Amino acid sequence: MLIAEPLEIAIQQLSKLPGIGRKTALRLSLFILRQSEADVSKMTESLLKLKSDIKFCSECFNLSVDELCPICSSTTRDKSVICIVEEINDVVAIEKTNDYKGIFHVLGGVLSPLDGIGPENLKIKELMRRIEKIKPSELILAMNPNTEGEATALYIANLLQETNIKITRIARGLPIGSDLEFADEATITRALEGRIQIK
Amino acid sequence: MLIAEPLEIAIQQLSKLPGIGRKTALRLSLFILRQSEADVSKMTESLLKLKSDIKFCSECFNLSVDELCPICSSTTRDKSVICIVEEINDVVAIEKTNDYKGIFHVLGGVLSPLDGIGPENLKIKELMRRIEKIKPSELILAMNPNTEGEATALYIANLLQETNIKITRIARGLPIGSDLEFADEATITRALEGRIQIK
Repeated sequence: MLIAEPLEIAIQQLSKLPGIGRKTALRLSLFILRQSEADVSKMTESLLKLKSDIKFCSECFNLSVDELCPICSSTTRDKSVICIVEEINDVVAIEKTNDYKGIFHVLGGVLSPLDGIGPENLKIKELMRRIEKIKPSELILAMNPNTEGEATALYIANLLQETNIKITRIARGLPIGSDLEFADEATITRALEGRIQIK
Repeated sequence: MLIAEPLEIAIQQLSKLPGIGRKTALRLSLFILRQSEADVSKMTESLLKLKSDIKFCSECFNLSVDELCPICSSTTRDKSVICIVEEINDVVAIEKTNDYKGIFHVLGGVLSPLDGIGPENLKIKELMRRIEKIKPSELILAMNPNTEGEATALYIANLLQETNIKITRIARGLPIGSDLEFADEATITRALEGRIQIK
């Protein structure tokens, strides 16, 4: 096939991105070709700056430009509540609600013995050290509601059995806007177990 | 929401790409953050090089590094057959078959009065000039099988009514691997009309 070399290289590079195959990479490349030179360099600069300027917060391992992320260095956040999440995306998802006022701890993954990921590969040691230092009143376990997430939540809860910190797990149940008819059994079971009294 | 600024800018830039929303842009940004600095600059360089090095072939308007694209400058391609396509993607799709030995002409779109795209917005004048110069024996109309594509094919065929060039249209019918049961009526009608004798 006779594809111009710079196009072929751009396609190869773009298709390394997650969820982007050769066809999408070609479409993106042709879109980029139609942009102005200034627009293209604005985009590539933003990616280089992303890589060079962003580090991990030394406290919670969220993304940060400085030593501490904006959440850890904020004076208005409640430092007695730590929400433990798997990945940085989860911080973004929770922050979007504008409802959570505590701080975070990003584990950087979940326990997954099949993939060779044990407690030493996650920021669990760092979490324990932080708990000792901050002495929070509550830990919210906000791992995803799947096997690995539940196992990781259980593992952390077990580590802290001896302490008197309140440990909570985010509710599992029917998502807003969904339909009982189409929900799976495990979700309905959890929704029933987690029912709350309204009167 | 407290998102680090370089991340926010990268998300904004990436979500300008077609088919990429904020969530995907965030996922791509976090992936880029996990790459090595060398890998990121390799990717951004490929995009800048794509933009700076690629021009349009002065003959067929395919992408090209030089004045003429590899297909137009090839000595092994049959210059008496011109395949007329809408976009550069279509050249790539046809070249992938390794079956077509003629040359191309990229219109850069299709006639679409509702979007204000008339013949003067497409490379139709250039096509006529090329036909006069090359005097091809066959023109293959390979526009997409939809209303605009059919209208554009008809328009070009009408322009060339007075000449004795053979004008063909790519076959419309059932795609390989598909199922008659699930095909739409228009496709089945075309497949019946275009039936070929096998004995």
